[in-house]
Amino acid sequence: MTNQCEYIVDDKNLDINLGEKVKADFPIFKNNDAIYFDNSSTTQKPQCVIDSINSYYTKYCANIGRGSYSWANKAEAEVEKVRQKIASFIGANIDEIFFTSGATDASNLIAYGYGLKNIDTDDEIMYCSDDHKSTYQPWENLVKILADYGKKVIVKNILIDTEGDYKEDDLIDKISPKTKVIILTHIHNTYGLEMDIKKIVPRIRVKNPLAKIVLDCSQSVGHIPINLKKLDVDFAFFSGHKMFADTGIGVCYIKKSTQSEMQKFKVGGGNNLFEVGTQNISGILSLGSAVDYINSVGIDKIESYIRYITRYLYSKLKVISQIKFSKGIDKCSCPLGFGIISFSISGIQSCDVGDVLNDYNIFVRTGDFCRITKDEDFIRVSLHIYNTIFDIDKFVKAIKYIVSEK
Amino acid sequence: MTNQCEYIVDDKNLDINLGEKVKADFPIFKNNDAIYFDNSSTTQKPQCVIDSINSYYTKYCANIGRGSYSWANKAEAEVEKVRQKIASFIGANIDEIFFTSGATDASNLIAYGYGLKNIDTDDEIMYCSDDHKSTYQPWENLVKILADYGKKVIVKNILIDTEGDYKEDDLIDKISPKTKVIILTHIHNTYGLEMDIKKIVPRIRVKNPLAKIVLDCSQSVGHIPINLKKLDVDFAFFSGHKMFADTGIGVCYIKKSTQSEMQKFKVGGGNNLFEVGTQNISGILSLGSAVDYINSVGIDKIESYIRYITRYLYSKLKVISQIKFSKGIDKCSCPLGFGIISFSISGIQSCDVGDVLNDYNIFVRTGDFCRITKDEDFIRVSLHIYNTIFDIDKFVKAIKYIVSEK
Repeated sequence: MTNQCEYIVDDKNLDINLGEKVKADFPIFKNNDAIYFDNSSTTQKPQCVIDSINSYYTKYCANIGRGSYSWANKAEAEVEKVRQKIASFIGANIDEIFFTSGATDASNLIAYGYGLKNIDTDDEIMYCSDDHKSTYQPWENLVKILADYGKKVIVKNILIDTEGDYKEDDLIDKISPKTKVIILTHIHNTYGLEMDIKKIVPRIRVKNPLAKIVLDCSQSVGHIPINLKKLDVDFAFFSGHKMFADTGIGVCYIKKSTQSEMQKFKVGGGNNLFEVGTQNISGILSLGSAVDYINSVGIDKIESYIRYITRYLYSKLKVISQIKFSKGIDKCSCPLGFGIISFSISGIQSCDVGDVLNDYNIFVRTGDFCRITKDEDFIRVSLHIYNTIFDIDKFVKAIKYIVSEK
Repeated sequence: MTNQCEYIVDDKNLDINLGEKVKADFPIFKNNDAIYFDNSSTTQKPQCVIDSINSYYTKYCANIGRGSYSWANKAEAEVEKVRQKIASFIGANIDEIFFTSGATDASNLIAYGYGLKNIDTDDEIMYCSDDHKSTYQPWENLVKILADYGKKVIVKNILIDTEGDYKEDDLIDKISPKTKVIILTHIHNTYGLEMDIKKIVPRIRVKNPLAKIVLDCSQSVGHIPINLKKLDVDFAFFSGHKMFADTGIGVCYIKKSTQSEMQKFKVGGGNNLFEVGTQNISGILSLGSAVDYINSVGIDKIESYIRYITRYLYSKLKVISQIKFSKGIDKCSCPLGFGIISFSISGIQSCDVGDVLNDYNIFVRTGDFCRITKDEDFIRVSLHIYNTIFDIDKFVKAIKYIVSEK
């Protein structure tokens, strides 16, 4: 986790009142005083995002890429503006951005579109079965499909260390000249650490320059600044609904030079190799509005604020002796935080904790979080910019009450 | 087209003022006096559909199938209500309804999920290359993928007769014991006829009881009453945005007994075999609201009204001697109409007609309509319930002007 220490001292972007300021932008909090701590699952929507959907449906609703009348032209132009916004936001070129129905759809697109064409008997792929299912199960499925056609692919599992980052040396050791694809996660959906992608990718490139690298950015886009060109990955993906946009929209980044090595995944109407059928136009427009919103707040400010409230939450929880933290913030040697803290309470099932918190109108996630590690039973708190110190204090008070009552 | 004649005399459901009455439900027409005649491409949205999206985002925005707090429970319950509504609306059981990102996504799901597992060398599939690309190209793609793995599949093309329906005897003749899948369309997206599915399917079942039948209902759901159980197909699909719902949402019907013969298509988080990752929740909710809206107007009334305005439009166009109609209403022996009329004007490119109409604020589609028949260049008028006789009169006046000026 060494490279991440560079961030720590930089607090010039911190505005400790950011949460209170932006909360008013999210109409759901005007209707309800609930404390929403399940942001890794999905985020609330600012009014501007909702407005972008309403505007499309009340002013220029038409399909794109087909009609040539004024509403269709306007919708098409707006969609292409969003594509450019996304490209700029994540350090990519406009022709490397493809809209999907979500992160899972994108992950499957990569597995079918690249894997089915390029992976053969004795080739190796590497993924981490402790990551979110959507990152590696499309590849697991691909291996099964290839096996049905007589192709035997080797899978090597990437391990996570005691802190919550990838076991870097082990990962590099496992790479061979037969390694075709390596699937990584940017910020882990349960442990909450930024994986050391900046250090791992250059080492992968040295060991096997031809291996393709896929990066799941579902928990990082909208939380920290991202530059995919600098990260030097071949594929990346994320969903819109985890960054204030509509459900049903995601983004797949495919490096330009890699596109020609792929085959079609889904086919149908439309002229774009990786976008077929009528796109989720309202979803795309909402995504553009979400990027505008994030830019208006400032991604650096968002990063600093999320780190601040994560550290604050951690400082309050760590003094409660019955709490047992997962890998992540508690085990990491660097004082960082990217919004996610998972823990259990000795002697109480996490779902029971969740139920009591729900009675307090505090919403957290409990369970295994779309991972296969079924023996883990955590309470996950995942924060975003509208969460405040006041929310955290109420949550900690509730946790202390639950602990005292058991 | 004989079976369709039963409809003609039944006009008890016709309300000739329906268009004027419902137009006020669609806010876009309050903001703009445009005449929108591109309903086969996408439809406008009634206020209740827009409200359902707003309500989710301002009152109970949470992911489904994961959290157990009140907003998540509410969202999950609402989504399952929609699944039941859709099932009732199309004559299916709730466990036969799967949400997809659209019709194209569903068509690909069927090709990968059923085809990749069940189709082998020398097996035959049948589709019509004059149908919409999204109905048959996923199968064309499947044939290519199977060929890459050494499996040679035979494709037989279904033909369309001079009226615009399938050449039924030829279709039946082409079926063999090796026929695995037959892909059909319910209402054709260019010619606008209801294909004679009610008559064709029983004949297919007699000739080869094991062949699976796929039905594209994109242009029929929301236009005419549909009962998939009675139609006796194995798979069906349609998109929400063509029936007043949000973009990015579609439905795949898979007959219960067929589900166990399939393999996964996309994989990732979630426990449903054919729905993975975060669903397009706002899209699903909008679809429920769209079904409520259609039910409140009455699908029988909608069918009668669309037939009425289609016939009216045809009667006005057929007296213009420069107009050359496509297959469909003009060639069919029965006086029917399902909302779609395609034609060209001698001596004028269709796109030029479209441009002039756009200047009149009348929006039609021109070109080849996602079909491969590139030598066809049509102007397509596709109608829905908010279109009125007044709109059609203005359109016909504009067409007459264009014809007179050439």
